Amino acid sequence: MNRPLVSIVMGSDSDLPTLMEASNMLKEFGVPHEVRILSAHRFPKGTALYAEGAERRGIRVIIAAAGGAAHLAGVIAAHTSLPVIGVPIETKSLKGIDSLFSTVQMPPGVPVGTMAIGKSGAKNAGVFAAEILATHTPALRRKLHAYKKKLARGVRLKNLKMGFRFP
Amino acid sequence: MNRPLVSIVMGSDSDLPTLMEASNMLKEFGVPHEVRILSAHRFPKGTALYAEGAERRGIRVIIAAAGGAAHLAGVIAAHTSLPVIGVPIETKSLKGIDSLFSTVQMPPGVPVGTMAIGKSGAKNAGVFAAEILATHTPALRRKLHAYKKKLARGVRLKNLKMGFRFP
Amino acid sequence: MNRPLVSIVMGSDSDLPTLMEASNMLKEFGVPHEVRILSAHRFPKGTALYAEGAERRGIRVIIAAAGGAAHLAGVIAAHTSLPVIGVPIETKSLKGIDSLFSTVQMPPGVPVGTMAIGKSGAKNAGVFAAEILATHTPALRRKLHAYKKKLARGVRLKNLKMGFRFP
Amino acid sequence: MNRPLVSIVMGSDSDLPTLMEASNMLKEFGVPHEVRILSAHRFPKGTALYAEGAERRGIRVIIAAAGGAAHLAGVIAAHTSLPVIGVPIETKSLKGIDSLFSTVQMPPGVPVGTMAIGKSGAKNAGVFAAEILATHTPALRRKLHAYKKKLARGVRLKNLKMGFRFP
Amino acid sequence: MNRPLVSIVMGSDSDLPTLMEASNMLKEFGVPHEVRILSAHRFPKGTALYAEGAERRGIRVIIAAAGGAAHLAGVIAAHTSLPVIGVPIETKSLKGIDSLFSTVQMPPGVPVGTMAIGKSGAKNAGVFAAEILATHTPALRRKLHAYKKKLARGVRLKNLKMGFRFP
Amino acid sequence: MNRPLVSIVMGSDSDLPTLMEASNMLKEFGVPHEVRILSAHRFPKGTALYAEGAERRGIRVIIAAAGGAAHLAGVIAAHTSLPVIGVPIETKSLKGIDSLFSTVQMPPGVPVGTMAIGKSGAKNAGVFAAEILATHTPALRRKLHAYKKKLARGVRLKNLKMGFRFP
Amino acid sequence: MNRPLVSIVMGSDSDLPTLMEASNMLKEFGVPHEVRILSAHRFPKGTALYAEGAERRGIRVIIAAAGGAAHLAGVIAAHTSLPVIGVPIETKSLKGIDSLFSTVQMPPGVPVGTMAIGKSGAKNAGVFAAEILATHTPALRRKLHAYKKKLARGVRLKNLKMGFRFP
Amino acid sequence: MNRPLVSIVMGSDSDLPTLMEASNMLKEFGVPHEVRILSAHRFPKGTALYAEGAERRGIRVIIAAAGGAAHLAGVIAAHTSLPVIGVPIETKSLKGIDSLFSTVQMPPGVPVGTMAIGKSGAKNAGVFAAEILATHTPALRRKLHAYKKKLARGVRLKNLKMGFRFP
Repeated sequence: MNRPLVSIVMGSDSDLPTLMEASNMLKEFGVPHEVRILSAHRFPKGTALYAEGAERRGIRVIIAAAGGAAHLAGVIAAHTSLPVIGVPIETKSLKGIDSLFSTVQMPPGVPVGTMAIGKSGAKNAGVFAAEILATHTPALRRKLHAYKKKLARGVRLKNLKMGFRFP
Repeated sequence: MNRPLVSIVMGSDSDLPTLMEASNMLKEFGVPHEVRILSAHRFPKGTALYAEGAERRGIRVIIAAAGGAAHLAGVIAAHTSLPVIGVPIETKSLKGIDSLFSTVQMPPGVPVGTMAIGKSGAKNAGVFAAEILATHTPALRRKLHAYKKKLARGVRLKNLKMGFRFP
Repeated sequence: MNRPLVSIVMGSDSDLPTLMEASNMLKEFGVPHEVRILSAHRFPKGTALYAEGAERRGIRVIIAAAGGAAHLAGVIAAHTSLPVIGVPIETKSLKGIDSLFSTVQMPPGVPVGTMAIGKSGAKNAGVFAAEILATHTPALRRKLHAYKKKLARGVRLKNLKMGFRFP
Repeated sequence: MNRPLVSIVMGSDSDLPTLMEASNMLKEFGVPHEVRILSAHRFPKGTALYAEGAERRGIRVIIAAAGGAAHLAGVIAAHTSLPVIGVPIETKSLKGIDSLFSTVQMPPGVPVGTMAIGKSGAKNAGVFAAEILATHTPALRRKLHAYKKKLARGVRLKNLKMGFRFP
Repeated sequence: MNRPLVSIVMGSDSDLPTLMEASNMLKEFGVPHEVRILSAHRFPKGTALYAEGAERRGIRVIIAAAGGAAHLAGVIAAHTSLPVIGVPIETKSLKGIDSLFSTVQMPPGVPVGTMAIGKSGAKNAGVFAAEILATHTPALRRKLHAYKKKLARGVRLKNLKMGFRFP
Repeated sequence: MNRPLVSIVMGSDSDLPTLMEASNMLKEFGVPHEVRILSAHRFPKGTALYAEGAERRGIRVIIAAAGGAAHLAGVIAAHTSLPVIGVPIETKSLKGIDSLFSTVQMPPGVPVGTMAIGKSGAKNAGVFAAEILATHTPALRRKLHAYKKKLARGVRLKNLKMGFRFP
Repeated sequence: MNRPLVSIVMGSDSDLPTLMEASNMLKEFGVPHEVRILSAHRFPKGTALYAEGAERRGIRVIIAAAGGAAHLAGVIAAHTSLPVIGVPIETKSLKGIDSLFSTVQMPPGVPVGTMAIGKSGAKNAGVFAAEILATHTPALRRKLHAYKKKLARGVRLKNLKMGFRFP
Repeated sequence: MNRPLVSIVMGSDSDLPTLMEASNMLKEFGVPHEVRILSAHRFPKGTALYAEGAERRGIRVIIAAAGGAAHLAGVIAAHTSLPVIGVPIETKSLKGIDSLFSTVQMPPGVPVGTMAIGKSGAKNAGVFAAEILATHTPALRRKLHAYKKKLARGVRLKNLKMGFRFP
């Protein structure tokens, strides 16, 4: 794979199945990316170094996923000017509403573009990263147009499969 | 102003004071942008046309703000492959938690990068749009680096002003 | 079946088991209806066209069900003046409270008559559609009166079955 | 005014300012209606009698608004087969989320078409009642079509007023 | 069993396993009681009649349990001056928070003494009914004193069983 | 005033305006009562002693109001077998939902009959205490019947005052 | 084991598996501790005596865990000046948000240092107790430094194991 | 003032009025402390350095307050083994429930002892810090015992002032 343009980081290896949705989406769009396990709480210095070095290493978008008092995306965003996409991980007790609030309610000056809780959010993080890169990459833009058409076609096909005529 | 790169759309003119935070931020970064009032519910065709035409007109990022059953960002995202940044507007009864859920909980395939509820979110939408454009605009990237330093300096200065020594 | 008077639309085929409750209820009342899979996000143009054409095709009530940032009912309501009944689908993390807020908190001018989350709501959507049609259909009104009596009788019978005397 | 087709009932006279939104909307559509104060808790027999008699008196739709453990819409729905539109009133402590849950989470068999919390919901209750009547009243349907166009025109005009060009 | 002093009513026979906790508690205290299935929504007249007749038949306390837009306790309280104890039943999507709000947030003048959601609440409804009767029944008061001592002894014994010395 | 039958206790003198609703209600019913400021947290021994001694001093019902981590009602209930009525006080940040959960979610064996948050709840605590005493006091029962009629008459009068004919 | 410095108390033996996390953590740090089952509601006097005697017996930190209207930590804190760490136990219906509010929203003057809901919170209660003791115990402080390094090393190792290069 | 033992840090100077409650409490107990404005998001390196250096400079407890996606306490805790007390600041839209979840729901290994939202929490942070220091400082322990007595006396006095006899 080429030099990665997107970095996917997560707070725990138990989040990997969720984040594979982001990785698979980026693969579908042919966007080279890397995956790392970081932790704003257990590995703060490594996380800061990683975030600070990302731009220099050619990373253009960072996807960060965490659960509970989910500080990972916010801490990454504190250490870089790259766009940071946050994915709130579903949690056992509070079902990810803690992760959502901790990711989205960022103070002025340090944004995190937050996705839905869980797998839908992870998949969309991949699409959103591609959309960001596509703002300056015509080839990727065409792939996104095709993807949008595929989504619409998918709905049409489901109607056909169920035997629903579509006007 | 040059041809706009960012579009700020909102569901009602009563949201303008909130969205001025986004506009001011973009002005600070020298990013040309336009502002429009749209409505997924009261003006659905105009909204669809606007979203579909945005990319062709040179828009690269759309900031969409709405409150309540806030469909604006999601409907815009349904009609374009540009990155859409959502700003949940604070509402009277539910304080914007309705706006937040309606903006962030998007289904797979159609992301909205969601910001905090209200003015903080609007300001961050401006910063986030600049970060997205900066992924391919070195001059803007330098402005973002300077902005980050200004944020840190601001915290230092506040300590000085309160007479708190900083180690 | 005769020309459909009610249309049941949903955001995904995984919602079908839930929406069968609406369909079965309409069958019980002898109300002809059609079922379609639509999506405000993945199939926005088809959804708009469908909603715009519904009245012309003789549809009188639309039942729309979706989950998460549930825009389907609201987007349908934006494109038609027919009464739209919204069914919030239960979601994995937020249990349908996101769907409920996204469906019910509509802005002034564009109502969605919202039902309970999940299967109870879907069943009631069928009853409510029948009640709407019955406002001008005496035969249907009589069926609804009979249905109400059946509900009451059902409670009486349960007491009998449990051996509870009823005063 | 002609014989009323719609009944607007509410739990307290302090809800009148909210419900005037529904009444004004119905006036705008020329729909004759009546207003009453009822209470599922303080005036249960009167409420039951009123609900049972409504259909016979020519009422075709009932709008019921209440706050807190808002039982009014549900109790009305228990006593009639007319479509009942519920408006959750904003409350002091829980801001109407108690009213929303108490109105919308109806058990299978007894639907309440629930609107947004507060004034938006009250206004939409008026529109929704008109939409229900319009299913069998072509003249009213035309008024609703005109209303929808007025909503769209309103958005266009706001852009003009702010000096925003619309493409 | 003697003439019942307490009535346990519930919205559905599926609530019986929950309400057995109340019944068993009353059996433990030797309080004669009856169990009925009622429904504020499906069986409103029977429910009103039952509530109105309860005092005359010698019932002194009513325990009412329901879920969702739980109107049963409130509707019973509207039709009687006997103390009504409400038990919010756990629901599928909202986990009983809808039932809790619909039961506890009663308007001034018509109280429902609300218990915890689910089985704990049902058990406590039995204890609370006994406490109410005991205000004028010395024999029952002594049983309640003994019950309180048994609760304390139970905690002591658990420590012993785990091998925890108690100072 | 005669020997008090009801005790109203609260966590802070700032709760007095809320609890006056309970006191006024009891005055209306002619029920002698006393008012005290107690605190499960700042005055635990005094609170325990007060609760333990209440039954002996002739108190038959205790109304306990507190806010936040509202332990007062629960701690009183731990120390007495008298029926304890809990009133959740509205709080600044969480609006009393913290008080509600802390009051109502009692473990099995130690019930608190919980009222609505704030003034409505306080007023209803007074009514509920009267209902409890009335289970064995025919004179009080008659007053409660009259009160219920007054509530119904109040609704009728409001319709008259607004000029609404009542069928 | 030496004389205990930390006491772990919980409302029910069903909480033991959760609280073992705290105990294991303290064992890892070599902190002698004791475990007891107490109950603010079922065993109030024993709980008060235990809390009052703890300081005298050499206990320096108390960890208290409970669920629902979780009064245990607050009641302990009312009876001692030792630092009390609260662990909200996950509950069936409200998932521990009731326990969290009941534990954390303490009134001024009587703090409870509250941990996350469930097992994470229990484990952290052990770490936090060690941190408190370490403020005056250099040997324990060194163990905590080593523990922090182990946490960081754990993240590094997970990357290695997944084959992720770390820059 | 002597060398500070406690450090109070907050995310913004607008939090100072809230945090003065903590400072005043520490002054009352004679605990030397320092106050600083830090920010996990705008000043991440300064925050990390400050947290890392605190123990070496003789700080024994850190009180950290922030609002929204409140990362400050968690980030401080990531960089030190001192006990960190978190104070969730009330926010405009979500009223501090975002701050509470972001502060309390910490992952295993990195605890934050969380206080109530807002001023009560800030005051209690001061008391809790004193309790921690008192575990090894007999003089401070005596002050805390006196403080507890003062709290109880305060409740007694309020009863006297209102003219409530206390048994």
